[in-house]
Amino acid sequence: MALDLSADLVTLTRALCDVPSVSGAERQIADLVHGALSGLGYLEVLRDGDAVVARTHLARGRRVVLAGHLDTVPVAANLPSELRDSADGPVVWGRGTVDMKGGVAVLLALAAAVPEPSADLTYVFYDAEEVEADRNGLGRLVARHPDWVAGDMAVLGEPTAGALEGGCNGTLRVEVVVPGRAAHSARSWLGVNAVHGAAEVLHRLVEYRPREVDVDGLVYREGLNAVGIRGGVAGNVIPDECVVTVNYRFAPSRSEHEAFEHVSALFDGYEVRLTDSAPGARPGLDRPEAAGLAAVVAGLTGRPPRAKQGWTDVARFAGLGVPAVNFGPGDPSLAHADDEHTPVADLTVCFEALRAWLTA
Amino acid sequence: MALDLSADLVTLTRALCDVPSVSGAERQIADLVHGALSGLGYLEVLRDGDAVVARTHLARGRRVVLAGHLDTVPVAANLPSELRDSADGPVVWGRGTVDMKGGVAVLLALAAAVPEPSADLTYVFYDAEEVEADRNGLGRLVARHPDWVAGDMAVLGEPTAGALEGGCNGTLRVEVVVPGRAAHSARSWLGVNAVHGAAEVLHRLVEYRPREVDVDGLVYREGLNAVGIRGGVAGNVIPDECVVTVNYRFAPSRSEHEAFEHVSALFDGYEVRLTDSAPGARPGLDRPEAAGLAAVVAGLTGRPPRAKQGWTDVARFAGLGVPAVNFGPGDPSLAHADDEHTPVADLTVCFEALRAWLTA
Repeated sequence: MALDLSADLVTLTRALCDVPSVSGAERQIADLVHGALSGLGYLEVLRDGDAVVARTHLARGRRVVLAGHLDTVPVAANLPSELRDSADGPVVWGRGTVDMKGGVAVLLALAAAVPEPSADLTYVFYDAEEVEADRNGLGRLVARHPDWVAGDMAVLGEPTAGALEGGCNGTLRVEVVVPGRAAHSARSWLGVNAVHGAAEVLHRLVEYRPREVDVDGLVYREGLNAVGIRGGVAGNVIPDECVVTVNYRFAPSRSEHEAFEHVSALFDGYEVRLTDSAPGARPGLDRPEAAGLAAVVAGLTGRPPRAKQGWTDVARFAGLGVPAVNFGPGDPSLAHADDEHTPVADLTVCFEALRAWLTA
Repeated sequence: MALDLSADLVTLTRALCDVPSVSGAERQIADLVHGALSGLGYLEVLRDGDAVVARTHLARGRRVVLAGHLDTVPVAANLPSELRDSADGPVVWGRGTVDMKGGVAVLLALAAAVPEPSADLTYVFYDAEEVEADRNGLGRLVARHPDWVAGDMAVLGEPTAGALEGGCNGTLRVEVVVPGRAAHSARSWLGVNAVHGAAEVLHRLVEYRPREVDVDGLVYREGLNAVGIRGGVAGNVIPDECVVTVNYRFAPSRSEHEAFEHVSALFDGYEVRLTDSAPGARPGLDRPEAAGLAAVVAGLTGRPPRAKQGWTDVARFAGLGVPAVNFGPGDPSLAHADDEHTPVADLTVCFEALRAWLTA
């Protein structure tokens, strides 16, 4: 079996979906993608594990990275794929059609259809996006081969229903620790109740007004939320500690360090432990190449670009100083759903927009 | 081996301690107690599992119940017992000397020393006090043989350092449930944060002023405390539920039902689930027999009776309508300690006070 990159988008999407590639089992699909790209003589093809990178060397003076992951969440009796009718027109149905074999199909079709792009291109197809961050194939490439994924701008083909979504918020988690002193609850006046003490921490969260921040012309909406609380050791003991886990989603204009300082200041008087952190990504829509893509998409769909609120792999480019946008077929709310399906029109719009932009 | 109930209190206490009887392994000590009491011709001896009951039938018109548990918490290299010197005089050292072989020794010595008490007496020695409530031997007797433990007043020989501690507070636990609506924390505005909602519940706890209540002349101090809080399912999800576990310790003038109504009203607007409940026990110090014991103890020690704040097995008598007090040798703060030890003077004071009272 081989992939035919010159097939129509529906055929190519379905062919990719019909090779199951749940995270950790991407070998077969990586081999197929590797083989298909190797058949295009104008691309240098590189390989690291189950990640495949292919790039032009046309001395264009600027380079665009086009990336997508090859893995999916587990199949839920939704393969093989089907072409179905719907009220909104034909859709490709099945696991991966949204997240994100549809986007991968668009990128692979571009590789075959655009041998002489106006910018040098690097296609990146990687493994293990749907699992723990430390297994992420793009993260591995960034760490091992930063030159393979370097460029002036990146487009990640994650589902956005054909809209251009720029950058992403950063995210960090802290534990806010409220101390107490244990005592038997029959003599509670001998103790200090840490859970009661947490009332002040929750009060500050309730009173907090998250910002909306304009970054490169897109508005990012921040959020500060308790995502967990725990305290208490037994039904007859005054709790000697209460821990509130807080998740801060911060606009990409703020660094991880600045974000942690902000949260630490908010919880002044308490121990604040950083448990994990990931930077946001600026959309870079103030740069000409991104503005050009935004104009093409707006021309095709009538829709302006918008900020990506959730953290995505675009942020992995941020560490390399590469602004990045999300742009791909399929409604993201259907990602991971049993009824996952992507309109054929989305596949077409994404392909046409990117082809127009890359050949302009 | 047999127990000699006519031995001095130190010898009897040490003999009882040197028969290990960790909860669930009380057979040997129950057999020894059973055998010793059976040798006293004026007592009817009854047996249920590892609980032993012995009682007089002197037609005195009133009956006093004297009770103690035979089990201990696990031994911690603190057996066999020792007679040691201390700055405060000689002490019996070792597991169980405080909780509560010392008290059991006092009661067994009384059984041998007071063949013709002024009230009919029922001695109750039971198993499994130190473990889950549903294994409690006194609870089993109350359920199976309420007539074995009936009387006009009960004295539980739990450690009180020779002070008379009357009745006990009741206790109940509720779960106060704060609902929310889950959402991805990157789009927190689509959800309702249940942990943030719990701020109001904690605020009510912080603002609550517990009562001090005079019951039969003793002052009971109430307490209302969160003993646990939990909420949150993952680091990127707005919590859809937060549960605060609240323990209410209530004066014995309030019934379990009244206590639950009180807590439900306090958390009006929230679901309040009752998880467990145990009644308090009135001290009954307004009754002549209890007042008599209080007067004897005050005469010997100079100390007035005080309220027992913590829940104890005296409350099991409450359900039978029997007022009850705690009175026994040993500092309760040393119960379960590796360095558990009881002053010999405590053993003597308790024995003398009870003998004087029971023969008056």
